[in-house]
Amino acid sequence: MHSNTDITGRLLICCPDRPGIVAGVSQFLYAQGANILDASQHSTDPWEGLFFMRMVFHLQNTAMSPEQLEAGFREKVAQPRQMEWRIDYTDRRKRMAIMVSKYDHCMMDLLWRWRSGELNVEIPLIISNHKDLQKLAAGFDIPFHYLPVDALNKAQQEQQAIALLQQQQTDFIVLARYMQILSPGFVKEFPGRIINIHHSFLPAFAGARPYLNAYTRGVKLIGATAHYVTDDLDEGPIIEQDVARVSHKHAVDDLVMLGRDIERQVLTRAVKAHVEDRVIIHGNKTIVF
Amino acid sequence: MHSNTDITGRLLICCPDRPGIVAGVSQFLYAQGANILDASQHSTDPWEGLFFMRMVFHLQNTAMSPEQLEAGFREKVAQPRQMEWRIDYTDRRKRMAIMVSKYDHCMMDLLWRWRSGELNVEIPLIISNHKDLQKLAAGFDIPFHYLPVDALNKAQQEQQAIALLQQQQTDFIVLARYMQILSPGFVKEFPGRIINIHHSFLPAFAGARPYLNAYTRGVKLIGATAHYVTDDLDEGPIIEQDVARVSHKHAVDDLVMLGRDIERQVLTRAVKAHVEDRVIIHGNKTIVF
Amino acid sequence: MHSNTDITGRLLICCPDRPGIVAGVSQFLYAQGANILDASQHSTDPWEGLFFMRMVFHLQNTAMSPEQLEAGFREKVAQPRQMEWRIDYTDRRKRMAIMVSKYDHCMMDLLWRWRSGELNVEIPLIISNHKDLQKLAAGFDIPFHYLPVDALNKAQQEQQAIALLQQQQTDFIVLARYMQILSPGFVKEFPGRIINIHHSFLPAFAGARPYLNAYTRGVKLIGATAHYVTDDLDEGPIIEQDVARVSHKHAVDDLVMLGRDIERQVLTRAVKAHVEDRVIIHGNKTIVF
Amino acid sequence: MHSNTDITGRLLICCPDRPGIVAGVSQFLYAQGANILDASQHSTDPWEGLFFMRMVFHLQNTAMSPEQLEAGFREKVAQPRQMEWRIDYTDRRKRMAIMVSKYDHCMMDLLWRWRSGELNVEIPLIISNHKDLQKLAAGFDIPFHYLPVDALNKAQQEQQAIALLQQQQTDFIVLARYMQILSPGFVKEFPGRIINIHHSFLPAFAGARPYLNAYTRGVKLIGATAHYVTDDLDEGPIIEQDVARVSHKHAVDDLVMLGRDIERQVLTRAVKAHVEDRVIIHGNKTIVF
Repeated sequence: MHSNTDITGRLLICCPDRPGIVAGVSQFLYAQGANILDASQHSTDPWEGLFFMRMVFHLQNTAMSPEQLEAGFREKVAQPRQMEWRIDYTDRRKRMAIMVSKYDHCMMDLLWRWRSGELNVEIPLIISNHKDLQKLAAGFDIPFHYLPVDALNKAQQEQQAIALLQQQQTDFIVLARYMQILSPGFVKEFPGRIINIHHSFLPAFAGARPYLNAYTRGVKLIGATAHYVTDDLDEGPIIEQDVARVSHKHAVDDLVMLGRDIERQVLTRAVKAHVEDRVIIHGNKTIVF
Repeated sequence: MHSNTDITGRLLICCPDRPGIVAGVSQFLYAQGANILDASQHSTDPWEGLFFMRMVFHLQNTAMSPEQLEAGFREKVAQPRQMEWRIDYTDRRKRMAIMVSKYDHCMMDLLWRWRSGELNVEIPLIISNHKDLQKLAAGFDIPFHYLPVDALNKAQQEQQAIALLQQQQTDFIVLARYMQILSPGFVKEFPGRIINIHHSFLPAFAGARPYLNAYTRGVKLIGATAHYVTDDLDEGPIIEQDVARVSHKHAVDDLVMLGRDIERQVLTRAVKAHVEDRVIIHGNKTIVF
Repeated sequence: MHSNTDITGRLLICCPDRPGIVAGVSQFLYAQGANILDASQHSTDPWEGLFFMRMVFHLQNTAMSPEQLEAGFREKVAQPRQMEWRIDYTDRRKRMAIMVSKYDHCMMDLLWRWRSGELNVEIPLIISNHKDLQKLAAGFDIPFHYLPVDALNKAQQEQQAIALLQQQQTDFIVLARYMQILSPGFVKEFPGRIINIHHSFLPAFAGARPYLNAYTRGVKLIGATAHYVTDDLDEGPIIEQDVARVSHKHAVDDLVMLGRDIERQVLTRAVKAHVEDRVIIHGNKTIVF
Repeated sequence: MHSNTDITGRLLICCPDRPGIVAGVSQFLYAQGANILDASQHSTDPWEGLFFMRMVFHLQNTAMSPEQLEAGFREKVAQPRQMEWRIDYTDRRKRMAIMVSKYDHCMMDLLWRWRSGELNVEIPLIISNHKDLQKLAAGFDIPFHYLPVDALNKAQQEQQAIALLQQQQTDFIVLARYMQILSPGFVKEFPGRIINIHHSFLPAFAGARPYLNAYTRGVKLIGATAHYVTDDLDEGPIIEQDVARVSHKHAVDDLVMLGRDIERQVLTRAVKAHVEDRVIIHGNKTIVF
């Protein structure tokens, strides 16, 4: 039996744009006794005609279960409007896995913000193809799985990683400078649920050695890009980007050092947006509410 | 007789926060046949308990007049919820007056963007206490009123300015580096409708000579602030601010020159937000949707 | 006969790095009675071993002519150290030509800063392949040459442009959104002396329609790049870059509008650096002191 | 006996501005066989007439000791020109003490960059008036001294802190959110050698509770300021500042969280500048080369 409790939910919807959507959704929520805490919406060009919305609502002391709420929403609101939709609940913390290689700065920043309460997730596991960061992970009491990858064992190790991630009911994966390209089979298991940080301002300097290439080209700003992973390397939907000013004084090593600060800030902002259900993937682009 | 036409309106509301506001508003608009193009909302702290919303809606080929629409909204939505509210219509361009002294950069930026179609206003008049910019105004075919101010004639000239502004049905006034302090009597005529640009990052360096004071203090960033004018000098609700990096190399004159670029950008952004009905004044602060 | 006068010069040098260069140069200037007002230096990686320096010096009430000063410098300082070098004098304003098509924002920004004294150049001519901006140029009393370009007359019109530029002793050319690709023959006439503004963050979105491509890719920042023109389109040495934040809310037209502000700021900063002899081209990169 | 070795030094000078200073200094260094790796200079307004310079030089395989080098410089260069000057050597790492209270973010950032090799110092001790961060310090193997402060024991605890700092030959102290005001007696022991991070854009919001005050005023940017500590609270020479954009959506707690990122970045940049001998204090301002 479900006893009365509070529900705070985040509703994301996508459907054909036409009058009455906001009215329909808000009327339904009001009828359940919910208060709308925040709402954002976006419509694409008239010729595409799509409507996107994020609504955060609060149901105080309700006898309804989330399942009942969703069943009602599906029947009365979503199906008549051909909506794609989902509701996430703030009292259920997302389970975030980290995959990492040797560089510690992105992982450290995530762990630090997690411990300080700034990042509202559970971190059930860290997977790495190197042992270097094992001790750091231990300092945060997070299980660390060492899965070294070479040309021969890659498929097998990916299967092992998938098994671990699924056992831990992982909601999404953060590649915190994980220096291996994931195979299409891996990506397919977590569609729209793998966030990568690339150390350049994409689409500039995709691929390997972006800081060296930035140095060689003589750009006056370097950047970092957080994006969802797809089968096309560095081509997935961009969530967040930022840059820092550089000059002729900066050698490649300086770019690497400066870049660390941008990488972790950009990755953290992207992860936060994902955790707070602010991101909708639409084709190869994102709407970040 | 009102013939069928399109209406695009921007609705701004403020009322006590409680469930059902979004539902009530959107249900009403839907019932009139309106499509909601954009919506933003904000709630203050629970103990203050206020709800703010901006909704942009479109009514296609409607037989209703704006007056009828507003009458219906007042009765069915606004009064039951003790709303403060207003609707502005995009087909009615706001009438913006500019008051200016000798510096041309802020006025020029506004005029330039106005001519390029970036700033969707009418500019019925420019008022200045100096003749310096008369020729520039003429280049844009805008009536220029020279109202020199000294210790003796200030009250009289302000009356003259008020008369001109009212004759021209001025919606709001931009002080584009107008170097006179407006009297409370003047401000009272245009409450929440006078935008000033102050050449510092307020509350730092309020009052006279902010660049000199910034230089003397040795700050590493200089700024500019656009705010609504109230009776307290440089204390009104802030709309927009920005900064630029400086160093020991910059003399006071360099700060003045760099500052010009920040001033005009900050002022332009604030004016655009005001023109698009994105700003709600709440106490001495602003909500900028 | 040369009468006594003041000389303020900007010396730029490039030579093999080894001890004694600063000592040699500053000793020479001191011996002539010069005071060093500003100095910056840069050394490349040890394996390249090049030294770059910019020195601003002031000679008060000297009987020496610039020619005599340069002859002495060549013999005593430059030749023994295999220097490439040049001296520019602040009392000789550079002659800047503007080439433009239909967009006015970059040209306007340059003209405005020129008139306000912020940009210390002479502007002997504007060349355009369209008539649209003729009236604007007239407002600043600058000769405007209309040289329309089509597939058949391009070579001939470029010859005409070169002739005009040379008649006017043009020091450098600013392509303020000039929408024609200059032929190698044209570029060869003004090596390292043509500055272009490209409306993207290079190397991202080189070529045509960068804002459309940025929109399609879904980037979260758009940018602009000022660079010297070489025979490789959009591949020349970068002088300055900057970006602005965008989101899913921005349609292509919004990117174009936002981009205008970045374009003119980036171009202006690049032009100022060139005018103040702060830029040394080294291979396909720049040193901006 | 001093055996041959390499010397890399950073020379900082301040003296009356007049011709021949650069020549004199660089001639002296050249005569010792030194190569100048980097040089920056600054002159104040003509009426103040002061000259400042930073020169980084390298002496390869020299038989001279630093003492001999300095004795020669003093006699031949510094005394004839009434220079204030000092030379620091890169092979001698500065000894940095950290004073901290309960907030960990600034301390953590410094320790992290120190461990990653980004911050080239020794950290002989951490002093705190709270025990909260003791375990963190232990994780980095840095001695942690707990010196609780109340109204009665403040003078005594400061004496104890001074004794500890002096025993450890501390070069400079970083107040990484140390929530006690140091007495003039303490400050006098380390003139120009205590760096504080204040969590506002000074001079705005000096004193207590800057984030609350920023929220109340409704500013659109919040900031942080790193400065040298003097007897006037929050009034010392500013080394570095930065800001982040905020809006009506941010409650005070959000400002605190966002502010943490700015605080640690600003503090780190200031500490790096100090460590690399880039900062000269001049009156109540800084020159940061």
